[in-house]
Amino acid sequence: MKNKRTKLKVSAIRNGTVIDHIPAENTFRVFAMLNLENSIDHVYFGTNLESKKLGKKGIIKISNIFFKPEEISKIALVAPHATLIEIRDYDIIKKEQILLPGEIRKIVKCFNPKCVTNNQNIPTHFKIIQDYHGKMKLACRYCEKTMSMGNIEFV
Amino acid sequence: MKNKRTKLKVSAIRNGTVIDHIPAENTFRVFAMLNLENSIDHVYFGTNLESKKLGKKGIIKISNIFFKPEEISKIALVAPHATLIEIRDYDIIKKEQILLPGEIRKIVKCFNPKCVTNNQNIPTHFKIIQDYHGKMKLACRYCEKTMSMGNIEFV
Repeated sequence: MKNKRTKLKVSAIRNGTVIDHIPAENTFRVFAMLNLENSIDHVYFGTNLESKKLGKKGIIKISNIFFKPEEISKIALVAPHATLIEIRDYDIIKKEQILLPGEIRKIVKCFNPKCVTNNQNIPTHFKIIQDYHGKMKLACRYCEKTMSMGNIEFV
Repeated sequence: MKNKRTKLKVSAIRNGTVIDHIPAENTFRVFAMLNLENSIDHVYFGTNLESKKLGKKGIIKISNIFFKPEEISKIALVAPHATLIEIRDYDIIKKEQILLPGEIRKIVKCFNPKCVTNNQNIPTHFKIIQDYHGKMKLACRYCEKTMSMGNIEFV
């Protein structure tokens, strides 16, 4: 019996960002949120990959893109605890777990149509709280409604 | 100076399909068309990769999925000349260039709102033709309008 090629060699990215340990069901959401379908640079995307930590995970690699703190907060909302790795000239120069910030300003819409942020030119502002079941939620600083992470819509 | 890791080893897919040599600008279109964002199996996607043949290409690998002729015709419309590779137990069992069929039935909508296929329960039927500039177009068998590949909308 001949040897099977169960591994392949692929090019590593020279400069750019890797987002690893994305919950598999949200890999595509992160991809879409970052507008990667319009990228003109290398983009790799893998999902439903085996992960000891998550069961199934996703990974995204993007050449020549480094995210701003605001974009990292956005990623945190749909992929809390993902790993962010920055690469320069093939070396890992930064590797950190993405953590949910305590507050989110501007980037998320309030789901309450009557909220002042949906009716006047006021940027949204949420506190990140944990409900009685330990689930993370967004609490609007203006109308005080809370919404679950699954209902998030970005501005 | 230490050696840079310019190559990475990744797992090959055991069973499934690879679509290679997708024109880079259409990689995401193929991905979306095949509803891969809802896949529960391994999906890999790479775009804007160097290609001698195309300049820039895309590649998609999907575990445990083998496409039907109708789905391959759909892929052909947005990625003519892509390579379709079928893998079973890590072996390539089929490798072929996807070719545009001479006719397309049912899968594409006619862009002419007055066409009978948009007003009665009649499946669409197009011939694939080449215009004077060598561009491939779809000619509706019913209303005789021609539309370019960029305007395709699937049923």
